[in-house]
Amino acid sequence: MNESIIEGRNPVIEAFRAGKEIEKVYILDGCHDGPIMTVKREASKKKTPVKYVDKEMLDRLSETGKHQGVIAYIAAYDYIEIDDMFEKAKEKGEDPFFIMLEHIEDPHNLGAIIRTANLAGAHGVIIPKDRAVGLTSTVARTSAGALNYTGVARVTNLSRTIEELQKRGVWSVCADMDGEVMYKLNLKGPICMVIGNEGEGVGRLLKEKCDMIASIPMNGDIDSLNASVAAGVLAFEIVRQRMS
Amino acid sequence: MNESIIEGRNPVIEAFRAGKEIEKVYILDGCHDGPIMTVKREASKKKTPVKYVDKEMLDRLSETGKHQGVIAYIAAYDYIEIDDMFEKAKEKGEDPFFIMLEHIEDPHNLGAIIRTANLAGAHGVIIPKDRAVGLTSTVARTSAGALNYTGVARVTNLSRTIEELQKRGVWSVCADMDGEVMYKLNLKGPICMVIGNEGEGVGRLLKEKCDMIASIPMNGDIDSLNASVAAGVLAFEIVRQRMS
Repeated sequence: MNESIIEGRNPVIEAFRAGKEIEKVYILDGCHDGPIMTVKREASKKKTPVKYVDKEMLDRLSETGKHQGVIAYIAAYDYIEIDDMFEKAKEKGEDPFFIMLEHIEDPHNLGAIIRTANLAGAHGVIIPKDRAVGLTSTVARTSAGALNYTGVARVTNLSRTIEELQKRGVWSVCADMDGEVMYKLNLKGPICMVIGNEGEGVGRLLKEKCDMIASIPMNGDIDSLNASVAAGVLAFEIVRQRMS
Repeated sequence: MNESIIEGRNPVIEAFRAGKEIEKVYILDGCHDGPIMTVKREASKKKTPVKYVDKEMLDRLSETGKHQGVIAYIAAYDYIEIDDMFEKAKEKGEDPFFIMLEHIEDPHNLGAIIRTANLAGAHGVIIPKDRAVGLTSTVARTSAGALNYTGVARVTNLSRTIEELQKRGVWSVCADMDGEVMYKLNLKGPICMVIGNEGEGVGRLLKEKCDMIASIPMNGDIDSLNASVAAGVLAFEIVRQRMS
């Protein structure tokens, strides 16, 4: 499947009603007529992020020139559910191992992390619906095929997902400079590791929800590792502990 | 410093004679007059890679339109020498820890690896003069400032450099699927880790020169990690062993 763009009022409404996985909708700011209100209602039902933009922006995004004030993006790959990830762990007879990403914006980073998730033996990746890159064709390409094996679930609220995972016996560990050095933590057993945004790291609210905070020891002069490198380093520390 | 381009016969000859660090020279194919022969001689003395291209290519690369058949690229940052890296280790009272990269082509990967090198406490990065990206402005940017602290040395022959390092008591370990799982190797002491090209991994000749071959345990379906992620995972395994 390729990333695709749907333009025009009826095509977008139809896509919603057909249950297609819509990443994001762009709507002409100030537009309130019937069909546009229907698009907004459908987006709200599915919790699809909506962005209000001006005509110039829509014209630039448009491939057909006939957007009628609304453009929707469809995912290049299908998302999976958290349940699918638990199922996969069960099938393999392994403790669940998930990777949660908070607002990763660079598609190359998301692609590289899905690749890492696959090779570290994680059972899936969790991303938020909002303020984060989705499964675009660039992500699929930079995942080097991993997206065919390692699924990505998209959720509305990461904190709530952490709570749900806790109820199902999965511990959460976030990567943060303020934490305990990761080598000293016990990262065995069912686990969800949490990696923050490229610029800001893991947000305060999400960090407070996590059971453990793990730091990667920093011996240098600059602030932080690239997000996909940090994810790789923490993921393989989990692999190491699971092997020992 | 910014990456810069030098155009024209005399300016390029002067740059060589002033001892500027020239990354690469493009020369009009079939051109054999005096000044061009001087450029070739200077490039050969400094072991600067030369590429023979047609006029169309030179016109495209040219910013002034006055290339006179020759264009040279100067590094965005100065390179350091291997001796500087040993010196840095000595100053910090640490065993030398170097990262050698064989033909990394993607500037984002090189930038991310320099960032990793800085935070893992490595004393420098070694790259080859040939078939590899140099210190371009993209590399500087993606290094997130690390290039100001962690230097890069550029050498003509990586195998010979490994031999020199061995004579100076530095062990070499390359990352490769066929190796021993990295957790089982002793990676303490003076060490140079070697990471291969994005597509092909570490070449056979270089691999044979290395004292150890370390594999990152792979639990997935695809072939390999992103090169900068693999470098991060191995670098922090070295950090872990040094800490324990």
